[in-house]
Amino acid sequence: MIIVLKPKAEEKKIQALLEGFTQMGLSHNVSAGAHTTIVGIIGDTSKVDVDSVLANDIVEDVKRVSEPYKAANRKFHPDDTVVEIPTPSGGVERVGGEHFTVVAGPCSVENEEQIVEVAQAVKRSGARLLRGGAFKPRTSPYAFQGLHERGIELLLLAKKETGLPIVTELMSLHHLDLFRDVDVIQVGARNMQNFEMLKELGHCDKPILLKRGLANTIEEWLMSAEYIMAGGNHRVILCERGIRTFETMTRNTLDISAIPMLKHQSHLPVMVDPSHAAGIPWMVEPLSKAAVAAGADGVMIEVHNNPGKALCDGAQSLTPGQFGQVMGKLSRQLEFEGRVLG
Amino acid sequence: MIIVLKPKAEEKKIQALLEGFTQMGLSHNVSAGAHTTIVGIIGDTSKVDVDSVLANDIVEDVKRVSEPYKAANRKFHPDDTVVEIPTPSGGVERVGGEHFTVVAGPCSVENEEQIVEVAQAVKRSGARLLRGGAFKPRTSPYAFQGLHERGIELLLLAKKETGLPIVTELMSLHHLDLFRDVDVIQVGARNMQNFEMLKELGHCDKPILLKRGLANTIEEWLMSAEYIMAGGNHRVILCERGIRTFETMTRNTLDISAIPMLKHQSHLPVMVDPSHAAGIPWMVEPLSKAAVAAGADGVMIEVHNNPGKALCDGAQSLTPGQFGQVMGKLSRQLEFEGRVLG
Amino acid sequence: MIIVLKPKAEEKKIQALLEGFTQMGLSHNVSAGAHTTIVGIIGDTSKVDVDSVLANDIVEDVKRVSEPYKAANRKFHPDDTVVEIPTPSGGVERVGGEHFTVVAGPCSVENEEQIVEVAQAVKRSGARLLRGGAFKPRTSPYAFQGLHERGIELLLLAKKETGLPIVTELMSLHHLDLFRDVDVIQVGARNMQNFEMLKELGHCDKPILLKRGLANTIEEWLMSAEYIMAGGNHRVILCERGIRTFETMTRNTLDISAIPMLKHQSHLPVMVDPSHAAGIPWMVEPLSKAAVAAGADGVMIEVHNNPGKALCDGAQSLTPGQFGQVMGKLSRQLEFEGRVLG
Amino acid sequence: MIIVLKPKAEEKKIQALLEGFTQMGLSHNVSAGAHTTIVGIIGDTSKVDVDSVLANDIVEDVKRVSEPYKAANRKFHPDDTVVEIPTPSGGVERVGGEHFTVVAGPCSVENEEQIVEVAQAVKRSGARLLRGGAFKPRTSPYAFQGLHERGIELLLLAKKETGLPIVTELMSLHHLDLFRDVDVIQVGARNMQNFEMLKELGHCDKPILLKRGLANTIEEWLMSAEYIMAGGNHRVILCERGIRTFETMTRNTLDISAIPMLKHQSHLPVMVDPSHAAGIPWMVEPLSKAAVAAGADGVMIEVHNNPGKALCDGAQSLTPGQFGQVMGKLSRQLEFEGRVLG
Repeated sequence: MIIVLKPKAEEKKIQALLEGFTQMGLSHNVSAGAHTTIVGIIGDTSKVDVDSVLANDIVEDVKRVSEPYKAANRKFHPDDTVVEIPTPSGGVERVGGEHFTVVAGPCSVENEEQIVEVAQAVKRSGARLLRGGAFKPRTSPYAFQGLHERGIELLLLAKKETGLPIVTELMSLHHLDLFRDVDVIQVGARNMQNFEMLKELGHCDKPILLKRGLANTIEEWLMSAEYIMAGGNHRVILCERGIRTFETMTRNTLDISAIPMLKHQSHLPVMVDPSHAAGIPWMVEPLSKAAVAAGADGVMIEVHNNPGKALCDGAQSLTPGQFGQVMGKLSRQLEFEGRVLG
Repeated sequence: MIIVLKPKAEEKKIQALLEGFTQMGLSHNVSAGAHTTIVGIIGDTSKVDVDSVLANDIVEDVKRVSEPYKAANRKFHPDDTVVEIPTPSGGVERVGGEHFTVVAGPCSVENEEQIVEVAQAVKRSGARLLRGGAFKPRTSPYAFQGLHERGIELLLLAKKETGLPIVTELMSLHHLDLFRDVDVIQVGARNMQNFEMLKELGHCDKPILLKRGLANTIEEWLMSAEYIMAGGNHRVILCERGIRTFETMTRNTLDISAIPMLKHQSHLPVMVDPSHAAGIPWMVEPLSKAAVAAGADGVMIEVHNNPGKALCDGAQSLTPGQFGQVMGKLSRQLEFEGRVLG
Repeated sequence: MIIVLKPKAEEKKIQALLEGFTQMGLSHNVSAGAHTTIVGIIGDTSKVDVDSVLANDIVEDVKRVSEPYKAANRKFHPDDTVVEIPTPSGGVERVGGEHFTVVAGPCSVENEEQIVEVAQAVKRSGARLLRGGAFKPRTSPYAFQGLHERGIELLLLAKKETGLPIVTELMSLHHLDLFRDVDVIQVGARNMQNFEMLKELGHCDKPILLKRGLANTIEEWLMSAEYIMAGGNHRVILCERGIRTFETMTRNTLDISAIPMLKHQSHLPVMVDPSHAAGIPWMVEPLSKAAVAAGADGVMIEVHNNPGKALCDGAQSLTPGQFGQVMGKLSRQLEFEGRVLG
Repeated sequence: MIIVLKPKAEEKKIQALLEGFTQMGLSHNVSAGAHTTIVGIIGDTSKVDVDSVLANDIVEDVKRVSEPYKAANRKFHPDDTVVEIPTPSGGVERVGGEHFTVVAGPCSVENEEQIVEVAQAVKRSGARLLRGGAFKPRTSPYAFQGLHERGIELLLLAKKETGLPIVTELMSLHHLDLFRDVDVIQVGARNMQNFEMLKELGHCDKPILLKRGLANTIEEWLMSAEYIMAGGNHRVILCERGIRTFETMTRNTLDISAIPMLKHQSHLPVMVDPSHAAGIPWMVEPLSKAAVAAGADGVMIEVHNNPGKALCDGAQSLTPGQFGQVMGKLSRQLEFEGRVLG
């Protein structure tokens, strides 16, 4: 951490500032120029609060040199994390490393026929995990909010029928008990900085699929992963789902650069959700291919057996037939890239 | 709601679409042109899901004509809502209408001396509500997270000492029991779309101060207010705290236009938090003055008795002396505007 | 400027890097820690290209300590710049300092009757400069592009009739000859980084009204002012007109914080264009009042004698009557603030 | 175009509004509901100004149904445009359709040795066009601005030496004469809405490489292409180079979705500039691969023989060796995709 002091800072105040760092077990290094004095703080500064330093009236500016995240940082954990997800049949799905994982399913679980039919269809096409919402974050209180407990039951039924582990979103810690048999807990974009939820999930023994917030930086996202990991749960999967920008032709803007950046900065697996990123079904294919090319560890795709009748986000869902075509393209591309589908 | 159909839409499918609206109690109005057929849907369309309509393969585009919020809409409630907050002495503070309310206090409660001293100071200068965080949403899990239960106790102590009602942030429904004697519950920017929290607060009998999300539109914000109001709690105060943009010289960008826009679209009171908006103490004065000029119903300002030693956000806090000066300017400006401070 | 070197940077390469700075007349200051070596570069670093330094393979990061603009920097020019604009009657209008200047007129000049009528009306209400577009930057090539040479002639006619100096936008250096009798040359948002135009205007003896680009930072804006000033023309007026964000209820988002920030960082006068910022006529009044409160040196307002028939931007124009009402409010507010209208 | 009228609009005013459209050769279709009257305007509405319609006091809202661009619209020109660029040896390079074109070279031309060496190197690796800046848009007036006329001469020399056609940026119409022997004229991001330049280039017989503005929507971008095409020059190549967002880890955010969207909406070829998009050399490879996967028609990559000594943007340049490696990967990927490199 580098601290730039204001010109003519009083020596007494400088000493008090440095003393504070010494008490935190950090050493320092003062370089006094004619106009500007620069202080380098040496040691693990991840617990130093930049704001507090800035609030000191002799401080002009503060700059971190090292990343504020540690558990999620590739520097301290060079190998890719591979998150293991047990399957009902006693096997295991692996996300990360050489594996490329496809999660598919409807936006929301609607009824038994729908979820079982979609689950069977996406399994046939190569999906390895089933997604489906039981609790739905909707902008409007008047929109369909999901089937709640019944939705989880139907997902578990579809899991039993197909053998696919299930991924579903947690919207409140109050519902955590219902997630006992859920395989992967999804934290949605709107809860990426629901820190109390993240802390609690840090004590949970399930993989967490952590979606990027609508307008959160990559660093903030890794800090949210750090919240979970700091609690002891290292099974975190990141999922880029598009960020909010001025562009209106697509629902969000898929930040494709986030993939190589995350793979560079962190060892955690990174998935992409092309359905939410664009909000347009015919864009799922090119964006999924781009995700593979950029190095993603998987994609999460919305599939519905009757998009026109979907209770939620039908407009962006693929039919099972369209999904099968996308999977055909992806599997050939993955083979070309020397990667393993599933 | 206006629906633009795709050219050459099949008559059978059009009838099926219209039938769906009829079943929802909505009537329609078809205008068939040579190239484009336009359908107007008439009635209360707030429960119609735009996405579901768009998912229909004969639909080209959908546009809402009326706002999707009702309880928060000024059209159906022309008079300003005035939120009443009881004071310990049996009186009442009023937010909205002709009143201009100043909320002040530290970012986080740190100890008895700090919170009582700041409370007394801000009261002397004219603040009518005391703010202070007991649960703090911090980007880093390694940063100070607040005093939690002890923080609430200290706030209640400061309330007792000064008679100021208190405003503090709820970060999890798990903590709701601790908020029994809190006067105004704040929903922070990161929880603006924590819909489960909003629903629960809809059943609560306390005023809610709802901050705008970092990158949420005004319409989404009003929809979050609608979540609370749909549950029966109509005592919602909106608080603009800056949005995320590309500009980096200020922490966030205060959306000053949101104030007149909200006053135009809704009857709810609107406050401004100039401390978080800019993150720069000397900007609190001009931004507060701009808020008054633009028609805000109050401001929320961070004050700390020793900003350089603050455990959180010290860099943006005013000293009690600086706060007093800002209050002097604001009270003269409010008098000029013919408004009532407090 | 602070340079953070990569761990284990070769001594030979460090010496080569430092040698480069010495050749530019800059001295340095190396602080070698156990893990990180920090170099402080001392002297006028405004000509150092951060990118070039970053391209050196031993450099981890670079941070400017001082601003890259000098002529526009208040540090080197503490007093407010007051831009003088001669009037046809031999007087002078002053923009900046204690003066508050209102510029008003139609988006585009349409015909003699329109521009003269509007000019007379806005003068009566207190405007001191007349605006009107002869060359219009339109998103569509099929939209009305302005009257060009004839538009300038009509503006000069209105100037003669009313005595108001005129402000109009330059869209190409090819048209510069036509601007001989124009009093203030406006550089529009889309040309804020048209550097060849800025350079040429640096050699011109007229005041320049430099609008902020749609998505340009305050620092980039000041660097564009610096381009003009580096050429010798110090008569630059900055004009905030809203930035592009995700919000859609207003056309742009007025960055109100930019006003105090610019007044703090620079000595140049700062105006606000509330008409383009929001794109909504009824918002001109609250945004103008907010601009005064935040310390702006003037506002620029669109007025049309028949908005419904305007060839451009009619939707955001005030009628002369509405403008008169806004002016009444602003003049009382300015009087309260102890400032001079005009 | 759909116009929503305000409730209780006067019949006389409605007739006047409709009359205006009739005079423009457009027909209409009125659908009067109990609360809302909707007017559909039928015919070519690309010349109707939405703002002017909105300015009418009986109009509540206006919505375009058809795109405002025609020449660039795939609807009216279903086949891919292939832009032909003659080579010095009498051949032709083709951009668009089945071809994938790589443009490479330094940010700015610095001297003969540099440009010739880089040109030879990138040609050896498979680049088909040489890029290099003679006029450089720099944020700071104190930064290196390019070699100007001498830069063009050196590019022409490198073209002669290697046979590669050249692409270079035009910053002012004043320099157009110098571009006589330039093969492709680049319009930079900052000039994407320099409409006078676009109009002039519409009368020019050279291909135009039109970069996307920093914060311009896809629709605005296509409208800028339309400006050029409306003048008669249909040889436009679009180039996505990253947009401005809140994310700071990359210089800009590559909008990968823009590629399939542009290919869907328009017939023009679309290239990607991964060097400017991220500003990070090691990201050029994954972003280029993502561009291929998403359907781009080419990439434009910065290559410098000595990035650490580059006078401009060295930090994002590849060395010729690194470029060769990227080209190896791209050529295998293109072969897999069944596309032709060059």
